[in-house]
Amino acid sequence: MKAEIIAVGNEILQGFTLDTNSNFLAKRLTELSFSVEKITVIQDKRQDIIQALDSSIGHCDLILMTGGLGPTSDDITKEVLAEYFGGQLVENKDVLSDIEKLISSRNLLMNEKNQKQALVPDNCIVVRNKNGTAPAMIFNKNNTYLVSMPGVPFEMKEFFENDILLFIKENINLTPILVKVINVFGIAESVLAEKLTDFEKNLPENIVIAYLPAPEGIRLKLTGKGSNFDDLNTGLDKLAQNLKMIISDNFVGFDDDTIEIVPGKLLKEKKLTVSTAESCTGGLIAHKITSQSGSSEYFKGSIVSYSNEAKINILGVNPRTLEEFGAVSKQTVEEMATGAIRLFKTDYAVAVSGIAGPTGGTETKPVGTTWIAVASKNKVESFEFHFGKLRDINIRRAAANALFKLLNVVKSEIDRN
Amino acid sequence: MKAEIIAVGNEILQGFTLDTNSNFLAKRLTELSFSVEKITVIQDKRQDIIQALDSSIGHCDLILMTGGLGPTSDDITKEVLAEYFGGQLVENKDVLSDIEKLISSRNLLMNEKNQKQALVPDNCIVVRNKNGTAPAMIFNKNNTYLVSMPGVPFEMKEFFENDILLFIKENINLTPILVKVINVFGIAESVLAEKLTDFEKNLPENIVIAYLPAPEGIRLKLTGKGSNFDDLNTGLDKLAQNLKMIISDNFVGFDDDTIEIVPGKLLKEKKLTVSTAESCTGGLIAHKITSQSGSSEYFKGSIVSYSNEAKINILGVNPRTLEEFGAVSKQTVEEMATGAIRLFKTDYAVAVSGIAGPTGGTETKPVGTTWIAVASKNKVESFEFHFGKLRDINIRRAAANALFKLLNVVKSEIDRN
Repeated sequence: MKAEIIAVGNEILQGFTLDTNSNFLAKRLTELSFSVEKITVIQDKRQDIIQALDSSIGHCDLILMTGGLGPTSDDITKEVLAEYFGGQLVENKDVLSDIEKLISSRNLLMNEKNQKQALVPDNCIVVRNKNGTAPAMIFNKNNTYLVSMPGVPFEMKEFFENDILLFIKENINLTPILVKVINVFGIAESVLAEKLTDFEKNLPENIVIAYLPAPEGIRLKLTGKGSNFDDLNTGLDKLAQNLKMIISDNFVGFDDDTIEIVPGKLLKEKKLTVSTAESCTGGLIAHKITSQSGSSEYFKGSIVSYSNEAKINILGVNPRTLEEFGAVSKQTVEEMATGAIRLFKTDYAVAVSGIAGPTGGTETKPVGTTWIAVASKNKVESFEFHFGKLRDINIRRAAANALFKLLNVVKSEIDRN
Repeated sequence: MKAEIIAVGNEILQGFTLDTNSNFLAKRLTELSFSVEKITVIQDKRQDIIQALDSSIGHCDLILMTGGLGPTSDDITKEVLAEYFGGQLVENKDVLSDIEKLISSRNLLMNEKNQKQALVPDNCIVVRNKNGTAPAMIFNKNNTYLVSMPGVPFEMKEFFENDILLFIKENINLTPILVKVINVFGIAESVLAEKLTDFEKNLPENIVIAYLPAPEGIRLKLTGKGSNFDDLNTGLDKLAQNLKMIISDNFVGFDDDTIEIVPGKLLKEKKLTVSTAESCTGGLIAHKITSQSGSSEYFKGSIVSYSNEAKINILGVNPRTLEEFGAVSKQTVEEMATGAIRLFKTDYAVAVSGIAGPTGGTETKPVGTTWIAVASKNKVESFEFHFGKLRDINIRRAAANALFKLLNVVKSEIDRN
């Protein structure tokens, strides 16, 4: 099955907005076994939209289109689609009532522009928007389905994962395709690739492997296609287990179990708790943990101690430790971790202190130098890292490594008991 | 002048790789006054490459093409380009020597694949690669220049910023273009659009406006084209100042001065300090603030109090307040804010407590209910919000609104003094 993606938006063509929508849709369509043949980004211009439709309708099974559906005058996609597929705009009572509810919940008054958003083509399936004002629309012509969705990323994702996915599964005949992800942490991509040389050589023809590296670790993605779903599933599972063995200590989890999820899951399962004491990560570890619903069961809180006074007054770090060894040191980060345990009364605490850059580096402690400590009730361990020069990447790497060290310490204590 | 971008690569179409190259080139081309008419991502297939070229050559002044130039057998772009423009591949001694040097510097031996990379079309300008093995190539046909560059982001950027930029400036006659961004917060897109109806009607023909909404506010973008750079600059500045007046209290800043930047800038300028006490935002406000280099001058720290015990023991919230009014209440969030001021000894503190969801909502306090307090030394103000149902968006909206409220309180206290 072939698919294409069309994004409408001058902001993308001007480089103002990174087109993450097309990336998201390309990934999801590939997972569904579509071959994505083309991504096109075009302007909010009648002629350009028509030309894009002409070159795609009838040449693929599905077109996903994003953007161009806002309330402002530069958004003309809905009008052009109605015309292209030979329909007219009519007021939709359900959509109107959705918009009225949304507007009144924000304590606003309906205006002409909101009213206009309730006009929809009379020749499409209208899908109501639970998170915004513009509905999605599904058209069909020459055996091609065209789905038009708003360009606001979270509205688009909600549409896709719910109504549109269901529609695709019910209306387009897809070959079974399965994806299994193995999350890996703490190993360089080239070293991992070398470790997996034999594994890759012996992969069956219907399964491909891809490496997706990020500061939060490497995601190894196995994608398999086949006619029998159960065989494919069993085969992929076997390979994934095999990979887990080879990767050994650097294995984090399967699929959605990334380094941001796994420590929390383990703590929850074992009814253990954690807190954090953060300097250079500035709250990012706490933010990553609390992004998970239900995290309040195992996460009690964080002290972001961005000043020495906060380290001393709140976390109880000894002023002499700071004076003698500095804020970025084994001694300070260990006292930060034990301070957090004392304050939050948690089973574990993880602390980070480092020089994120671009300023603050010295000869002996260059930008990127980072200390991470993990404390449990009777013990504290610490680890030194040397990251790079980029502030945002250093912060992300520090947060991810802190979670990985936390995971290892918790795991080894559980194994010991 | 019109430009188009073509990216070649299955990894983008499968969603493995986010196409940051096209975003970079779109931004740079727009800055150079090109109108970027289209971005197309295609597979490494002869027929697809030819079709993309057919639909673009002769229709624009410049095509920038990335990817498809690697050493592996699936990279066929160079062969297809040579053929399309009517040339043949010949060995280039300079390119061969560049490759030999690079390979030996990595302690590797030349192989057949490296040797093949020294073959270049005999009908193009060859631009040598200082950072990798594949050279860039410049072709011309029907008044369209086509530049083909490797897809490795840093190699591509180096090519563009040096040789290609120079070539464009020398060979294509460009008109000045300028962009001005006005950052707006706390107003719905439709309400803003209504407020700006007259402004939009009276915009000169050479200037266009675009709305870019996100949980962190709306970015209004003015793009102007003209023959005289100074006139254009003055004109855009006047319009931006005009917009600032119309937008009034919802104006945050120009260009890069977003809601995540402006409060910190103001605090730094006035030598004031801030701390945060975060419940549902879980450290995100602190993370946003500390993402800015130099933030330690005005940011002292945060207490992420995810449990009631932490609110009581660390922030000093009265247990009776929690019992009587609950954690998500005016009273609790105000005590959190004053607690943070006391602990961190800052001039201001901002506190947030809310129900991010998806669980935890009640009849009287549904998911999305959020309280934000801003405390200064002698005063505390608080505000109630009702966001939506999506956890991550609720967290982002709460963090952005907290920063906006902080900004307003600081501004009004400065105005009063």
